[in-house]
Amino acid sequence: MDIATRVWNHKWKIDPIVRSLIDTDFYKLLMCQSVFRKRPATKVTFSLINRSAHVPLARLIDEGELREQLDHIRSLSLSRGESTWLRGNTFYGKRQMFRSDFMEWFEGLRLPPYHLERVGDQYELTFEGAWPEVMLWEIPALAVLMELRGRAVLHDMGRFELQVLYARAMTKLWQKIERLREVPDLRIADFGTRRRHSFLWQDWCVQAMIEGLGARFTGTSNCLIAKNRDLEAIGTNAHELPMVYAALAADDEALARAPYDVLADWHEEHEGNLRIILPDTYGTEGFLSRAPDWLVGWTGIRIDSGDPAKGAEAAIRWWRERGEDPREKLIIFSDGLDEERIRSLAEQFSGRVRLSFGWGTLLTNDFRGLAPEDRLAPFSLVCKAVAAEGRPTVKLSDNPNKAMGPADEIARYKRVFGVGTQERLAVEV
Amino acid sequence: MDIATRVWNHKWKIDPIVRSLIDTDFYKLLMCQSVFRKRPATKVTFSLINRSAHVPLARLIDEGELREQLDHIRSLSLSRGESTWLRGNTFYGKRQMFRSDFMEWFEGLRLPPYHLERVGDQYELTFEGAWPEVMLWEIPALAVLMELRGRAVLHDMGRFELQVLYARAMTKLWQKIERLREVPDLRIADFGTRRRHSFLWQDWCVQAMIEGLGARFTGTSNCLIAKNRDLEAIGTNAHELPMVYAALAADDEALARAPYDVLADWHEEHEGNLRIILPDTYGTEGFLSRAPDWLVGWTGIRIDSGDPAKGAEAAIRWWRERGEDPREKLIIFSDGLDEERIRSLAEQFSGRVRLSFGWGTLLTNDFRGLAPEDRLAPFSLVCKAVAAEGRPTVKLSDNPNKAMGPADEIARYKRVFGVGTQERLAVEV
Repeated sequence: MDIATRVWNHKWKIDPIVRSLIDTDFYKLLMCQSVFRKRPATKVTFSLINRSAHVPLARLIDEGELREQLDHIRSLSLSRGESTWLRGNTFYGKRQMFRSDFMEWFEGLRLPPYHLERVGDQYELTFEGAWPEVMLWEIPALAVLMELRGRAVLHDMGRFELQVLYARAMTKLWQKIERLREVPDLRIADFGTRRRHSFLWQDWCVQAMIEGLGARFTGTSNCLIAKNRDLEAIGTNAHELPMVYAALAADDEALARAPYDVLADWHEEHEGNLRIILPDTYGTEGFLSRAPDWLVGWTGIRIDSGDPAKGAEAAIRWWRERGEDPREKLIIFSDGLDEERIRSLAEQFSGRVRLSFGWGTLLTNDFRGLAPEDRLAPFSLVCKAVAAEGRPTVKLSDNPNKAMGPADEIARYKRVFGVGTQERLAVEV
Repeated sequence: MDIATRVWNHKWKIDPIVRSLIDTDFYKLLMCQSVFRKRPATKVTFSLINRSAHVPLARLIDEGELREQLDHIRSLSLSRGESTWLRGNTFYGKRQMFRSDFMEWFEGLRLPPYHLERVGDQYELTFEGAWPEVMLWEIPALAVLMELRGRAVLHDMGRFELQVLYARAMTKLWQKIERLREVPDLRIADFGTRRRHSFLWQDWCVQAMIEGLGARFTGTSNCLIAKNRDLEAIGTNAHELPMVYAALAADDEALARAPYDVLADWHEEHEGNLRIILPDTYGTEGFLSRAPDWLVGWTGIRIDSGDPAKGAEAAIRWWRERGEDPREKLIIFSDGLDEERIRSLAEQFSGRVRLSFGWGTLLTNDFRGLAPEDRLAPFSLVCKAVAAEGRPTVKLSDNPNKAMGPADEIARYKRVFGVGTQERLAVEV
């Protein structure tokens, strides 16, 4: 496959970006099944949020092209091979991870309508409806926006420029991988679907990880790539679960309990490596100090915001205080990783805890410095649950720059969860 | 064109390396015409010399494959389009550079037989016969050996490895070109045919120069690429002329005169930018001090061995001493160039003299550091006139590591040309 040539040949055509309902993160399907069982009728709103206001998406991306891509996604349904793979595969050592009722529902699913409106230089893109359906928009919507923005830039480049561009991007990634080969006992997975440069590029990045890291590369969050390349599909759960549970809470007491209710439901469904705590939605510190004892027995913690070393130290301290041996616990780093941070975190925590890395945007979209005016640099685009049953959701995170929700609700959540002053860190990608 | 894929697909086939008689350096054809007119019957021997003994060519390259490639070259003849291009094109502003009698002869030419023998880990490859025919073996023979050695290494690489390899090589070259864009008033040509990594790769390098340097890239020494890409074919004359003339000299007096006899013949045939002195065959210093006055009027000097800055300073001094304005003269650097040396030479001589660069091996074969054990690094392979009419040729050069010939003849030449102690410099490529 010659990516430059493919890009050149396809840049005048529609060329669907998302060609499969399983071209999405594995944890979306895990969470979807959970929601399908527990909260199938909950009405939610997901909304696209471009944290990088300097990227004028509506000027870069033609509305008609965006609609074509989104309409194409709405035309997709699970193929027989995809269904077989989901039904028959062993995930995290478990057969029939996806139950028949869920699979039957999923086989019949088409994604619900979207609402798209241009507002200034940005698009307002929202999805409303039943939670299990709407939530599946997140990853393809992000991937479409990211790739269309990339195409808008690539469109102005000549064939030779494209060849040099991809040569440089390949060289850059390969250099990172060579640096990562030096990390002893590395375990690392691809978490880069949502903000990838393109599907083809993500697929190449995964190949590079396979070639360069062998068994140290543990798999990909992308189900389609996992299926095509016979890899492990990787992932557990995300912020949307506590965010929606919290929004639905009737009062402050229920709100305080919501993050644990989520994990209680999860506990019931999953074991082993799927029992991973994501503690930062409303502040890691408070979450851990108030956590019930049964959570201490979980396999690990995913650190997704704030200073990752501080978060990991807090987790280690917490396990120790609760009588657990951190060396038997797993810490998954998944925020803002690049090879140097991976190396330094590995060095700091190796031997003290089991480690795993979920490498995202700077694996699958590190085109920084490769195009004029850096127009291909990745940017911070998210698609989040912003409301549930008409009530706004809130995320505090361990980095106030990642917080979201109405100001009064943020204040209430901070009070309920006892979150004090937080360190403000730049959100890179 | 995806080079990695082409390499992958072709590595099991014969895939001719040299597919045209004009896949050679332009100056070979200029010199050939000159020799065809002045010394058509001179019997010469050309021989392959691998100055890099650590590269065991006969262990890397199968003798049968080498013979197939050489036999293929013997099957080539000038195509109609090639002949039309040579006859009809304007070279250095001159129409009909190649006269009808020469073109008729060239159209009927097949390259003469070769003699190939394995000696230890090296090949002895020699060509004997009439000078105008034998001399045309030099460039294709070198290109075949270089590319077969490369193929031997590539053969062990997987498809993904090949993709990364070429991505890295492209990135490396592009970085060099970006550095060269910063050089004011740069004039640079491709001189990299003989020791290129491969034909496809040279062609890509030329494209990169076109894209990156625009009009600052003045052309290529490779006639086939010049023809295909509508570029200027670049080149003048080389050491083989004085070497053979010198070998034929009847006595010491004739020997001392030989380098000037060569240029007197050249003077008769060519003007303007083709009047370029190559002064180092028997020592630049002596050559210039004894040069007749009509040579001072020539357009420029090519510096092809020794410390290039010292050589250029010597040329500038010489012009000044003989009453010429160096700012109207041209210096062509063509030895061991890479982007940093080009930059520093440009900085040192810009404004003092007109400058041009003939960038060779490190343009078209800089695979240093890109393969395990550096097995794709370029090496110093030459194919030289070693005898004329049964008499050995001698080259002293401005770098004794580039000298060649029998010891007693070298001593005699040093005496005749008054060459004293020379600085010994590493021959890189």
